[in-house]
Order: sequence, then C-alpha cells, then structure tokens
Amino acid sequence: MAISIYILNGPNLNRLGTREPEIYGSTTLADIEAECARRGDALGMEIDFRQSNHEGMLVDWIHEAGDAAKGLIINPGAYSHTSIALHDAIQSVTLPVIEVHISNIFARESFRHHSYVSPVARGVICGMGTLGYGLALEALAGMVGGARSS
Amino acid sequence: MAISIYILNGPNLNRLGTREPEIYGSTTLADIEAECARRGDALGMEIDFRQSNHEGMLVDWIHEAGDAAKGLIINPGAYSHTSIALHDAIQSVTLPVIEVHISNIFARESFRHHSYVSPVARGVICGMGTLGYGLALEALAGMVGGARSS
Amino acid sequence: MAISIYILNGPNLNRLGTREPEIYGSTTLADIEAECARRGDALGMEIDFRQSNHEGMLVDWIHEAGDAAKGLIINPGAYSHTSIALHDAIQSVTLPVIEVHISNIFARESFRHHSYVSPVARGVICGMGTLGYGLALEALAGMVGGARSS
Amino acid sequence: MAISIYILNGPNLNRLGTREPEIYGSTTLADIEAECARRGDALGMEIDFRQSNHEGMLVDWIHEAGDAAKGLIINPGAYSHTSIALHDAIQSVTLPVIEVHISNIFARESFRHHSYVSPVARGVICGMGTLGYGLALEALAGMVGGARSS
Amino acid sequence: MAISIYILNGPNLNRLGTREPEIYGSTTLADIEAECARRGDALGMEIDFRQSNHEGMLVDWIHEAGDAAKGLIINPGAYSHTSIALHDAIQSVTLPVIEVHISNIFARESFRHHSYVSPVARGVICGMGTLGYGLALEALAGMVGGARSS
Amino acid sequence: MAISIYILNGPNLNRLGTREPEIYGSTTLADIEAECARRGDALGMEIDFRQSNHEGMLVDWIHEAGDAAKGLIINPGAYSHTSIALHDAIQSVTLPVIEVHISNIFARESFRHHSYVSPVARGVICGMGTLGYGLALEALAGMVGGARSS
Amino acid sequence: MAISIYILNGPNLNRLGTREPEIYGSTTLADIEAECARRGDALGMEIDFRQSNHEGMLVDWIHEAGDAAKGLIINPGAYSHTSIALHDAIQSVTLPVIEVHISNIFARESFRHHSYVSPVARGVICGMGTLGYGLALEALAGMVGGARSS
Amino acid sequence: MAISIYILNGPNLNRLGTREPEIYGSTTLADIEAECARRGDALGMEIDFRQSNHEGMLVDWIHEAGDAAKGLIINPGAYSHTSIALHDAIQSVTLPVIEVHISNIFARESFRHHSYVSPVARGVICGMGTLGYGLALEALAGMVGGARSS
Amino acid sequence: MAISIYILNGPNLNRLGTREPEIYGSTTLADIEAECARRGDALGMEIDFRQSNHEGMLVDWIHEAGDAAKGLIINPGAYSHTSIALHDAIQSVTLPVIEVHISNIFARESFRHHSYVSPVARGVICGMGTLGYGLALEALAGMVGGARSS
Amino acid sequence: MAISIYILNGPNLNRLGTREPEIYGSTTLADIEAECARRGDALGMEIDFRQSNHEGMLVDWIHEAGDAAKGLIINPGAYSHTSIALHDAIQSVTLPVIEVHISNIFARESFRHHSYVSPVARGVICGMGTLGYGLALEALAGMVGGARSS
Amino acid sequence: MAISIYILNGPNLNRLGTREPEIYGSTTLADIEAECARRGDALGMEIDFRQSNHEGMLVDWIHEAGDAAKGLIINPGAYSHTSIALHDAIQSVTLPVIEVHISNIFARESFRHHSYVSPVARGVICGMGTLGYGLALEALAGMVGGARSS
Amino acid sequence: MAISIYILNGPNLNRLGTREPEIYGSTTLADIEAECARRGDALGMEIDFRQSNHEGMLVDWIHEAGDAAKGLIINPGAYSHTSIALHDAIQSVTLPVIEVHISNIFARESFRHHSYVSPVARGVICGMGTLGYGLALEALAGMVGGARSS
Repeated sequence: MAISIYILNGPNLNRLGTREPEIYGSTTLADIEAECARRGDALGMEIDFRQSNHEGMLVDWIHEAGDAAKGLIINPGAYSHTSIALHDAIQSVTLPVIEVHISNIFARESFRHHSYVSPVARGVICGMGTLGYGLALEALAGMVGGARSS
Repeated sequence: MAISIYILNGPNLNRLGTREPEIYGSTTLADIEAECARRGDALGMEIDFRQSNHEGMLVDWIHEAGDAAKGLIINPGAYSHTSIALHDAIQSVTLPVIEVHISNIFARESFRHHSYVSPVARGVICGMGTLGYGLALEALAGMVGGARSS
Repeated sequence: MAISIYILNGPNLNRLGTREPEIYGSTTLADIEAECARRGDALGMEIDFRQSNHEGMLVDWIHEAGDAAKGLIINPGAYSHTSIALHDAIQSVTLPVIEVHISNIFARESFRHHSYVSPVARGVICGMGTLGYGLALEALAGMVGGARSS
Repeated sequence: MAISIYILNGPNLNRLGTREPEIYGSTTLADIEAECARRGDALGMEIDFRQSNHEGMLVDWIHEAGDAAKGLIINPGAYSHTSIALHDAIQSVTLPVIEVHISNIFARESFRHHSYVSPVARGVICGMGTLGYGLALEALAGMVGGARSS
Repeated sequence: MAISIYILNGPNLNRLGTREPEIYGSTTLADIEAECARRGDALGMEIDFRQSNHEGMLVDWIHEAGDAAKGLIINPGAYSHTSIALHDAIQSVTLPVIEVHISNIFARESFRHHSYVSPVARGVICGMGTLGYGLALEALAGMVGGARSS
Repeated sequence: MAISIYILNGPNLNRLGTREPEIYGSTTLADIEAECARRGDALGMEIDFRQSNHEGMLVDWIHEAGDAAKGLIINPGAYSHTSIALHDAIQSVTLPVIEVHISNIFARESFRHHSYVSPVARGVICGMGTLGYGLALEALAGMVGGARSS
Repeated sequence: MAISIYILNGPNLNRLGTREPEIYGSTTLADIEAECARRGDALGMEIDFRQSNHEGMLVDWIHEAGDAAKGLIINPGAYSHTSIALHDAIQSVTLPVIEVHISNIFARESFRHHSYVSPVARGVICGMGTLGYGLALEALAGMVGGARSS
Repeated sequence: MAISIYILNGPNLNRLGTREPEIYGSTTLADIEAECARRGDALGMEIDFRQSNHEGMLVDWIHEAGDAAKGLIINPGAYSHTSIALHDAIQSVTLPVIEVHISNIFARESFRHHSYVSPVARGVICGMGTLGYGLALEALAGMVGGARSS
Repeated sequence: MAISIYILNGPNLNRLGTREPEIYGSTTLADIEAECARRGDALGMEIDFRQSNHEGMLVDWIHEAGDAAKGLIINPGAYSHTSIALHDAIQSVTLPVIEVHISNIFARESFRHHSYVSPVARGVICGMGTLGYGLALEALAGMVGGARSS
Repeated sequence: MAISIYILNGPNLNRLGTREPEIYGSTTLADIEAECARRGDALGMEIDFRQSNHEGMLVDWIHEAGDAAKGLIINPGAYSHTSIALHDAIQSVTLPVIEVHISNIFARESFRHHSYVSPVARGVICGMGTLGYGLALEALAGMVGGARSS
Repeated sequence: MAISIYILNGPNLNRLGTREPEIYGSTTLADIEAECARRGDALGMEIDFRQSNHEGMLVDWIHEAGDAAKGLIINPGAYSHTSIALHDAIQSVTLPVIEVHISNIFARESFRHHSYVSPVARGVICGMGTLGYGLALEALAGMVGGARSS
Repeated sequence: MAISIYILNGPNLNRLGTREPEIYGSTTLADIEAECARRGDALGMEIDFRQSNHEGMLVDWIHEAGDAAKGLIINPGAYSHTSIALHDAIQSVTLPVIEVHISNIFARESFRHHSYVSPVARGVICGMGTLGYGLALEALAGMVGGARSS
C-alpha cells in the first residue's frame, strides 16, 4: 500500500505561472502536482496536494496530516515569515516535515530571510525551482517510518 | 438568568493533550470546557466555549461577543504574538477581556514574550496550567456589569 | 460600460462607526459603500465593495480582482502591518492598487507605522477620514487602462 | 473672497522635470503650480505656491501660513525625513496641514520611510504623482474653516 | 497545621492607596494583607506578608521563604524589570513562586514590559487589581506540596 | 518658618573630592552641604541633606520627603541610569523634584546618557559642577508651594 | 565694561507664547529677552539675544560669538536633536556654552531625548521653564574668563 | 566525457563522524565522498571532493572551479556565517553553486541563521543529513550547461 | 578654454586652521583655495571655490554646478551625516561628484561614519588632510567629459 | 605584617552549595572562605571575606577596602550585569580589583554576558569554579603595592 | 610521563613586545613560552607552544590537540571576536580548553567584548597580563584527566 | 635609493578583470601592478605588489612591511568588513597605511559599508577605479619618512 504524503502550499501559490515569471518561471501549481504524483508513484507514495491562502486552513491541514499521513512537505509562502501558528502546528505533529521554497528566499527582500517554519522542519530546500518538491519527496523517502527527531 | 461569557481559544489548542505534554500536560480542550462550564454554573455564568485555527474567525467571534456577552476570556495561542487584528478587535468591543496562557510564555522562546493582546486586555494570567481559565472566570465575576476601563 | 473597481476592507472595519469614534468618527462601512457607489457612478465605475476579517479571504479577493477588475482600492486595516501574504497577492496582479487608511496611522502606535502593502501599492492616502476612499477613486480614474508600473 | 491656501515645496523640487524622470516624470514645478491655481479657482481657493531648499525658510513660511492662511499643503522633500524643526513648526500653527509626496516613498530607500511631518499632519498622500497636490486641495476643501483636530 | 506562604512586596508598594490612584486604586497594602490573611485562613494557609524598598532585603526574604515556607507570592514592583538578583534568588529556592502585578504592566511604559522574575516564576497574574493576590493564593493552593517543575 | 527641602545624594557621592577629581573636582560632599545650607538660609529654606549608597534607602527618603518636605533635589548618581524604583518613588510623591548631576553626563559613557529619574523630575541641571545644587535651590524657590504639574 | 554674552535661540522659539502653552507657557521670547537683559545688567553682562529658524544662521552666530563674546547660552530647539553642524560649531569656539531647554525634553517624545549639543556644552539646564535662561546666566557668571575645559 | 563537479567542504568537516554525533551522525567525510562519487557516476559527473579549514584555500578552490568545473556544491561550515570573501568568490565565477548544510542551521544558535553564501548560491539544502549532498548533485544535473542566473 | 569645476565646502570649514588643529592642522580654507587654483591651472580647470554654513545654500550651489560646471568636489562637513537634501541634490545633477573629508571620519565618533553623500558620489577621499582636494582634482581630470555612471 | 585583601561576594552567593549544583557544584561559601584564608596565609595575605545581598552594602565595602586594603577580589553575582553603582565604586578606589565568576557566564543567558564591573577591574577570571578565587589571589600577589593602571 | 598541553596563540601575537606596549607590555611571545615551559615542568606538563596568523591553521592545531593533548590554552587574539570556525573546532574536541587574553578586552573597543570562543571554553582569564598563561596552566592542572563538561 | 612601498591586495582581487566588469571594469591586477610600478618609479618608490586570498597571509605581509617598507597601500577586499586581525596587524606597525577600494563600497550592499581597516588607516580612497592606487601612491609620497600619527 502506498505511503500517504501531504504536500501543502500557502498563499499566492495558486497564482504560480502567472505571477512574476522572472522569479518563479511559468510552471503552474497543477504542473507541480502532476510531477509530484508521478514521482510519488515511483517512490510508492500517495500524494495529497493542496493549496490555500488561509493560514488557519493550513493549520487545520497540518493537524490532519499529523493523523493521516507519514510525511509532510510544505511551501508556506509568505506565511513562512509571519506565522507562529504554523510553527506550533508543525510542533504538534510527529511526522517529518520538509520546507520548500521555489525561489531562493535569501536572495530576496530581507523580510523573507527568516522563517518560523524552518526551526521546526527537518530541513529546508530553497532556490531549486519546482524541482525542490521532487527533491523533498526523495528526502522524505528515506525518513518516513522513523520518528521526527527533536 | 446566567451571565453570558465567551471563552475563545486560538490556533493549535484543539491539539491540547496530544501536543507537547511536557509543556501543556494531558488535559484536553474538552476537559477545560467541561471544567469551565462547571465553574461557570457556580458563578451564575453561561459559558460559550470555542476554538478556531483561523485568525479571522477569532476576530468575528470577538465582535459577536461584543454584542452578545458580558465578558470574554481569550487564549489567543500563537496569534497573541502576531495579530494586530485581534488587538483591534478587542479594542472595538467594550466588555472586559482576560488573556490566558496555559504555559508560562515568558519562560519560552523570546518570540512568545510579546503579546499584541495584552495591552488591550484587562489583565493576563499565564503559567497556571488549565487552572488559568478558572482563575480568569473568578476574576471576571467581579468585573462583569462594569464598563471596561480604558 | 462601467469600469470595474474593487474596494476591499480588512479586519474590524465592519465595526466602523461603533468603534473608537474619536479616531474613526461615526460613519459606518455601509455609508462609505454608498458614497463610493455614488462617486463611482459619476466616474463611470462600477464598485465591488467588500469586507472580511480573514486575511486569506482578502488574498482570494485580490486574485479575483486581478482577473475581473481594472483597479483596486484596499484598506487592509491591521493586516497592513503584518501580512506579507497581502504584499505578495498585490504583486501577483497587474492592476493599479491604492492603499487607504481612514486615520493617520503615523500619528498612532509605532507598530502601525509600517505597512507591507505600501511598497507594492501605487500610492497611499491616509488620515483623510472616509473621504480617502473618494480621493482614491479619483486617483484611480486617471490610472485605469494603464498597466501598473513596477 | 477666496480662501488662502499655502503650498510649500522643499529641497530639490525646483529640479522637478529635470531630475530622475523615471521616478518623478517630466512635469515641472511650474506645471504643478499652474494646475493647483486652476483647481484652487474651482474650489474658491487662492493658492500661494512656493519652493525653497532652505529648511529655515520653510519653517518661516509655515509660521507665516499659520497667520495668513486657512490651510497648508507641504511636500517637504528630503526634509520630511530629517527635520524635527518642520515637525515643531507645524505643531505651532493651528491650520490643517496635508503632506504630499509625488513618488511612493515607501517603495524607495528605507531612509525615506519615516517622516517627522506625518504625525503632525492631518493626513498623507503619496505615490499619486503630481495629481497628489490636487487631491490634497480637494481634501482641504472639506477641512478649512474647522479647527485642526489633535 | 496551616501551610506557610510568604507574600513579598517590592519598592513603593507601601505607598499603595496614596500613589496614582487612577492606576492602582485606593486600596492600601494593609487592606491587601487583611484580605490575604482572610483568604489564607479559608485555604488553610498562614500568610507572612511583607514589604521592602530594598532589593537586598527581598533577596534575603526569598532565601528565608525557601527554608521556611511552602509557597511564595511576589509583587516585585519596579525591581521586576531591573533585578537579576531577584531572578537568581528565586532560582535558588525550590518552592512554587507566583508573580503578581496589580496593574496591567503591558499597558504601561515599555520598560515595564519585561520582567526578570517571570521566566523563573511558575506563572504571572497581572492587571487584576488587588484581586490578583487572592487568585495567586488560590493557584498556590493547588501547587504547594508538589516540587516546582523546572 | 523655613520651608523644608530635602537634598538626596546617591551612591559614591560620599567619595566626592577623593574620586576622579578631573571629573568632579576636589569639593567634598560636606562642602556642598555647607554651601546649600548657606544658600537655603538666604532663601528661607531649611535643608535636609543626606547621602546613601543604598537604592532602597533613597526610595525610603523620597517617601519621607513626600510627607515632610516642600521640595526635593536629588543627585541619584549611578542609580539615575538603572533605577525604576526611584522613578516610581518620585511619581508617588507630589512635591517638585529637580535632578542634579555635577558632571555633564552627556559627555561621558553612553550608559550615563539615559536617566529614569529625568522624565519624572521637573527639570534637570547637569555639568555645572557643585554650583548645580545652588541653581536647583534657586529654581525650587519659585516652585515650592505650587503643586507639581504632571 | 560689561562682559559680552550671546544668547541664541533656535527654530520655532519665535512662536513662544503662542504655541502649545500647556508645554511652554505664555511667556514670549521678547519677555525672556527683557528678563535676560535685566539679569545681565545685575551680573555685569551685556546680552546679545537672537533667534533664527535657520541652522546655518545659528552656526554663523556661534562663530561670531567665538570671536566677540565671553560666554554663550543656546536653546537649539529642534536642531538639538539633528544638527551635527551645531555640535561642530560649538567645538570650534573656546568660550563656555550652556544648553537650555524650556521644557523637560526627557519627558517628551523619544526623539527629543538625545542632543548633539549636550556633549560639547559645559552643561545643560532643562525643564525649568523660562527661568532656565536666568540660571544659565548665573552659571556663566562663574565661568566667563576661564577657558572652556575639553 | 563526465561533467566536472567540485564539492568543497569548509572548516571542521574533517572531524565529521567524530564530532557531536547527536547533530551530525557518525558518517565520515570519506563516506560522503564515496557516496558522491557513486551518485556522480550514475549522473555522468566526475566529482572533485575537497575539504579545508582555511578560508583562503576555499576561495582559491572556488576560483579553480570557476575555470575547471561545470558546477559547484559547497558546505562552507562556519565560514557560511562570517565570510564575505566566499560570497565574493562565488560571485566571481559563473557556474551554478548549491549550498549544503548537513544539520538544520535554523534550529541551532542564532549566529548560524545567516549565511553570506546563500544569496549568491542558486539554492540551499539544509537539515537533510549527508543525503543533502546527493540531492544537490541531482539538482545540479538539471542545471549544468546553463549559465547561472543572477 | 578651462573646464569649470565647483568645490563646495560645508559648515564650519570657514573655521579651518583655527579649530581643533590636532585634527585639521593649521591650514586655512583660503590656503586650500589657493592650492586648488594652482593645481586646477595645471590641469586646465577653472575652480569655483565656495563655503557655506547653510545646507540650503549648498543645495542651491549643487544645482548651479549641475548647469554650469563639468565636475564637483564637495566636503559636506557635518551635513554629510545628516542631509538627505544633499543626497538628492547630487542625484539631481549629472556631473561627476567626489566627496572629500580632511580628517579620517572613520577614526572619529560613530555618528561620523555614515555619509548620505557617499552612495551618490563617484568616490570618497578621506583622511589625507588638505591634500585630499588635490587628489580629487586629479581624479576628476580623468572623469570630466564623461557622463556620471549610475 | 600580612597584606590586607578584601574578598566581596554579591547576591545569592550565600546559597552556594545549595543552589543549582549542576552549575555551581556543592562547595559552600564557607568552604571558599577557608580555602582563601589558607592560600592567603601562604601568600602573606590577610583575607577579609564577606557576602551581602545588598548592592549598597557592597558599595560601602568597596569604599572601606579602598581605605583599608591593598587589593580586592569581587564576585558581584547578579549585580555584575546591572550595577553602575559598583562600577563607580571601583573607579573611586585605587587598589587593584579582580572580578571572579564561578561559572562561565558567557555560556549562560545572554543577560549575563555583560558586566559593568569588568571594564574597571584589572582583569576577569570566570568559569574556573571555586578555584577562581585562588587564581585571583595569586594574580593579586603580583600586583599589590603597585598603583592600579588606568 | 609529562602530560601534553597545547598553548595556541592567534594573529599578531608574534608582534608582542613590539606592538602597543602601553597595552601589552614589553614581554615577547618567546618570553611567555619560556615561562610556560618552566611552569609546565613544575606541574608535570609538557607544553607545545605555537602561534599563527592563519585562522585555518589554528583550527588544524585544535584538531591535532584533540588527538594528542590533555588540555588546551588558547589566546585567539582577534579571531576571538570573528571566528565561528574556532568555536566549532573547540566543540569538536573533548579536552578542557581555557581562553586567555593578556589585556582586559572588556576595557577596550566594543567589538572586542564578545568572543565566540568563550561559550565553548571551560573558562576565561583576561587582563592579567602574561601571568594569565600561568594561571591557566594552574587551572588546567586540576582539570586534565577529567572529561570536558558540556 | 628607492623608498620601499608595499601594496597588498586581498581576496578575489586576482579575479579582477574577469569578475563583474560592470563594477570593477576590465583592468586586471597585473595591469594595476604595472601602472603602480611606473608611477612608483616617477616618485622614487620601489613597489612590492602582492595578492592573497588568505587573511593570515595578509597579516604576515603587513608585519613584513612593518619591518621592510616605508609605506603600505592595502585593498583588503572582503576582509575589510570582517577582519579584526587586519585591524590589529596595522596597529602593530608604524608605517603610514592607506586603504583603497576600486568600487564605491558605500554604494553597494550595507555589509560593505563598514571597514575594520579604515579607523587604523591614515585615510581611505574609494570609488576611483584603479586610479585609486595611483592617488594613494601620490598621497604616500608626502607621508613617508614621517611617523604615522595615532
């Protein structure tokens, strides 16, 4: 049976491919979802891929993932930098969490250099474009089943 | 007739009892609700006890409390530290508001030491565990009926 | 055919007229909407006037405006000061955006002096009371049709 | 009889139209003066339009406006960010004052984000290009005659 | 036999009832002592209630409480914000400690927002007026006998 | 009958004349006391001149002055920069208070540039050497009898 | 022959008596000049009393005082907080300089708490109202003739 | 012919496997080199794997990579946080660079949260353990041949 | 025909040679002017050498230089550190500008370490004594005729 | 005759051996005193060993040491970090002073990293456990008799 | 057999005795080495005494000490304040480490007040002149053989 | 006999002409060396021109220059901003030192605005392109032979 993995996307990622293509390229979120499904199949993972502009919805989904999934990939978008609620939600679940950013947030405005999610994630992948999701899936493949270390 | 009191709980408090028991203990939010109902009964208060992970929902409920209740207890969770919207919502109502935190936020990460809610609340109770709700109800008992001082 | 303009209002603005009248006066949000409709008529604009306490809803509506409207006026309320998500949402659309604040935010608490919306808006009008909306409409009248400059 | 309004312009605004047209456009200060005179006529206002590169001269003129005018529009240019003397001068007069910036100062260098004038002005209009002066005149029209609120 | 509880009050609290009644009300420290004694009786507690303007005396008394009492309530007044010595004294004893402030320190000057005592206290109660002492006694009732958790 | 004036001196001022004469000169505290007595006589003031190295003692004496004197001069020495307790003590009394420093504290280490006493004193005299006490007495002469303005 | 003393007043002090009387009282600058002349006479001093809103003019006058006077009293007004040019001008002359502020700048906005003039003045007198000028003259009386210490 | 890739390791990474195994695990740098060689083979890459404790040597090697390699992976260790020289060295070459950290630097001391290398790298992978090197190789596989975007 | 070069000197430089000779030496501004004229002759430059203590005058002169000269050397003195108006004036002209300081400003008080002029000048020469003017002329010799790069 | 050395211990050091043994070990202050006496004997020193929780008492004793002793060792405990009064007291005496901390204060909370005593002490020994007192005595042995260098 | 102790000296310490004798005296590094050898002999220690201006070399030597020595004394000179690499190197070895500074770094420029080495050393000795090395050897004598506590 | 002058170049300057030509131009370091040799000849100076990417090597060379040369020009590159070791090395020698930067470091990233070398250099020349070396040689010509002033 396939391992359940949640991939959650935060605010404005639904605009991907239409917004600032010089930063994010022209790939859409649907393209990423398709690619993740394809790669998940190869890794024996069933991907639950979602997007919301609502911080509270992302918190709800992290809780749901904590009960229903074996691993979580999250691109928290702008909420990375402002949401202690996401920080706490991730701390409240025990599955491994990987934070992904499509662009290199350290090469952008200074208010994007700090993420409340990073210290409670297992690790961070950023600046790899949409490939970052695939790398995160590969990384999760080696982690799922094991408990998240403190 | 019982005095109406709202008790609002912010993000991740629905995970109480399952999340970081070394900080929050194993009591669940339902346990707290039951205890508050019991204590409210003794004080002639009818408790409306709610939780949401959505900042906007908490704002909506504060407005609702402003029209429907005589007092408000709020544990804003992570939104304490990031939400000017909650600050403003509390300023927009005239009933007495008490901020409660189960853990001692001053003994935790520095980003939890500042609360946007505190300066517009009547007072703050933190670090008393789930007993904090009961103490807040007792404190409200002496306040309801009177206008909130600036 | 009338030009479509969105006017979005953030958290607690639904309390306008009831809250802190010494700062905001007694005009209600419905009064403002009526005035904007009247002024929009004169300028050949059809006004879509909305309010939400939910940050995510405002992000959704900005996206919707990006597809459906020619201009956007936003009073982001407290989210001005905390929401990078709104910043990004505005960057993801190409229509001209004007930020309005009823009170003079620079004469209030220091945490209201910075707005994440301002650097991505075309301009800012604040402290003009509810007249600010009308001035913003007049300003938009000269901009709509043209692309938002970076 | 026409209402007397002073419009004061700070340092380097005499170079308008020759300096950094990608930020300020090619309109000259004389063009703005002409437009303000035209709009003032329509509003029953007599405009006294001046420019100086000298901080002390601007202070002198604000005092003069305090005695001779009913309203004041000021574009303090670079002195916005460094002059407590202008702040105090505006506090020393009782007529309504509106601060105007042609460019969006919040989208520029961080040292332009703070203005000592803003907290003592009635309101601020920025980023609207030279139209900002006209909007300020319209706003003043509703204020002159009334005492400046604290 | 009654449980021994120390209640220590810091600088200027001897002026209570005479000083800034708009912040502290007209209750005197003797009134609070009487009320605490009454409430202590009901809870089977013997209250040792003291006040000093000397930081060193408060340190001495905390040590004494560490040897002689089962619980400690402290209103450190201004020393809350400046005394690492009090911080260390509390760390040097093992009985549960509750910090009480009569006013809401978070609604006052910024230099009152940080307390060196809070991170080493079990919890904090502030803004409840003189009722705060009583709430602290109630809270202690559930703690005394148990060792202070780290 | 002579008006009672307290003059309080803080830590290390007992070493005056022996300590860092290049900053403080060779005048001793006894010399200052004699000069103040002489000047007080001329102004119809009876001077109560004291020194302590104990912050708590200074607080005690301010309270005493609040009951027994008509005016207070304080050279808080190093406690100027660290003592909120002195700040509060001065706020708890209603007589006029003048802060004196013998040296120019603004020409010394940066940690001497801020005084917690200054915002609650009527005024500050510094850098005038021991003459500062005399100037403060002259200033008090015009104030005593009147209530301290907020 | 009378000793020449310059008294220089900075921006907005020409508005004294008309501006914010709750802070500065109703005494005008002419009243102060008259009082200084009277007191100067008694001390054998000839007072040259001036005011300018121009920073450069104050610099010019300090230089002039350096050549023509024996002592200097300066109330730099708002330029206290922003002018390194005044700091340098005072360093460039060798006569004793006393800084005077009518109000207690330490009880006002934080941007008034730092003065570039203070570290190069002999001393500072603030919060004494217009009496401060007279106290400064008395202090100068003991200094003129002696070289300004570094 | 195999594509040449440099993998550079900074200070103390030679101690890997012996140092703080609770953070870095027991894998040695030789183990990582072997794994990279194996994975490089599969991707048609020839790996040049080096370590130095000398900042200057890392700068030299980056220059060498700029001339001899098609891609660069760098784990700058402690120099990430202090070396502008590495920042400049990477800017001086045109090949794609990926920064790798074995541990999650955002969950460690705050002085490890900022990297001078990140803003000039294509992307960052951290917290994935030694697997990070392999993920970086996979990411490079899609980049080599293309010019590094600014 | 000689190339026109403006050399502008800011506040207090008219005191050169009389003020703090241990920092600035005994050379007067007239000496510098003579030396610059001599060196300008050799380089085919006509020097217009001026000094003012008025920030506004310096702004006026920079504008004038923008129209009448081919190059500009400015020693802004204390205004370097406080004047955004000078920054903007230099941005409003297109001729090459070199900033000169006689003393090494980086070896003096920290408030002299930042210059608003430096980022808009071509370059900076400081600490070379009065020779700095001559070096700046030599540097300008290679630049005049060419447009100032951004 | 033995050389007189004072050893002063600040707040909470009387709890040594009972407080946080994982940081300070189980040695008591009496043990340290005995060891210091023993070592002092060997070095021809007579040790006056004291402890107080009162900042003012420590100031008094430093003055006393200035008159009666040849050297001073001080472990100021928590007052290291908050007491400018101790700083000034040490500056007011001329004997050599060595600051000792039993634990490594740089490995503890950040508020313990700064000491007001260190810049006026001859030197600092910390983290050596109770041996630090002995090392300080040995160091003093080479200093006493000589004047304290600035 | 003698216990092996490494003593490492950082940048510029080879200039000791020639550089700034008013701070460091005229003792050379060779003198210190000789004195350490002599004292080591008495304590049964064999001293390996080295100096380098290269940060990387110091890292190499710390690793070497970790394998070959029982204790380490390090005077990291300027690298104390900038080198996280040294911090990590010390963390990577298990032998006790003592940090020594000849001068009192807390009495010098503020950039010398923080050391990255201190929190990972056992303890710090500074300001004792070259005697500090000897005191460190004495301290190490009591530690070697025991494992470095965390 | 020619006067010996060292010219030292820091990290990445060996890439000059190949790296970021829009900032540094296409001149190589060899071109600069040749030009310096030519200019040195004219001034009777023998130039020792070197480059290293190793901070320690630069420190070594400064020491060597202190013994072997009469003057030193240093372009410390990125080490300007991070190296206290270079600061100390320059303080340890007595020959005059001039700091050169090819680009205008004040017009670049803020982390390049501070140099540890500047306060111990005689002066700084930046933004003049490669001409800066020649200007520095001319400046040195007037200094060599004289002792470096503090």
